[in-house]
Amino acid sequence: MPAHIPESHADLLSREKKAFACLALITSKGEPHVTPIWFDFDGENVILNTARGRLKDRIMHRHPVVALAIMDPANPYRYIQIRGPVVFESEEGGYDQICDLNLKYHGNRNYPKRPGEVRVTYKVRPEHVSTMG
Amino acid sequence: MPAHIPESHADLLSREKKAFACLALITSKGEPHVTPIWFDFDGENVILNTARGRLKDRIMHRHPVVALAIMDPANPYRYIQIRGPVVFESEEGGYDQICDLNLKYHGNRNYPKRPGEVRVTYKVRPEHVSTMG
Repeated sequence: MPAHIPESHADLLSREKKAFACLALITSKGEPHVTPIWFDFDGENVILNTARGRLKDRIMHRHPVVALAIMDPANPYRYIQIRGPVVFESEEGGYDQICDLNLKYHGNRNYPKRPGEVRVTYKVRPEHVSTMG
Repeated sequence: MPAHIPESHADLLSREKKAFACLALITSKGEPHVTPIWFDFDGENVILNTARGRLKDRIMHRHPVVALAIMDPANPYRYIQIRGPVVFESEEGGYDQICDLNLKYHGNRNYPKRPGEVRVTYKVRPEHVSTMG
């Protein structure tokens, strides 16, 4: 069962807020890795998108448990932490989905198409949620 | 040997910038964890401070390898990623050091003293550094 997203912090997941997530992963050496990333939220799962073969893709494919911290861009003392498994991974619709994210963050769907780049959509189910601020 | 902090992104580590770090750790279950945190930089190591017994303290004590992402508060597309071992851990001066951080982020050293709370200073040596933006 996905954890509940508290109403008090649901705005951090909204498209209007345009917040970034810090995505934490575990490398093949068993070390932590963290990177800022675009995300979307469909009311149930957190949606991420990367390109096939990149570090984030390779790690999530192999070790599909992640953690996210999403800070309010206007107030870093207010944030939500989400942890959970990757429950979906697909190349189908991957380019459309990065265009959705481009719309969220840049106001248009014109995400550049790069030769040979295959976009992958991942969905993370929030199993542990905590908030601050 | 610590990795070089590129001049282009050194401002993100400065006291003036007041940026937060997202600190990624690995829990005892082998899962990633990420949390926003205050930090300082002494020209060589990233300095963190937490309270003895908290999750961050327990994890860094047991598994002293961390990753940090530090975003420019004015531009989330500009950030520095730092990974490396915890090379120092001490309770000595821990309260003074959290007062230093209070000064950086709030402009005064009046960090609240909580009964029974023991502050711990950790230093992280940047072994892997990458930048964006």
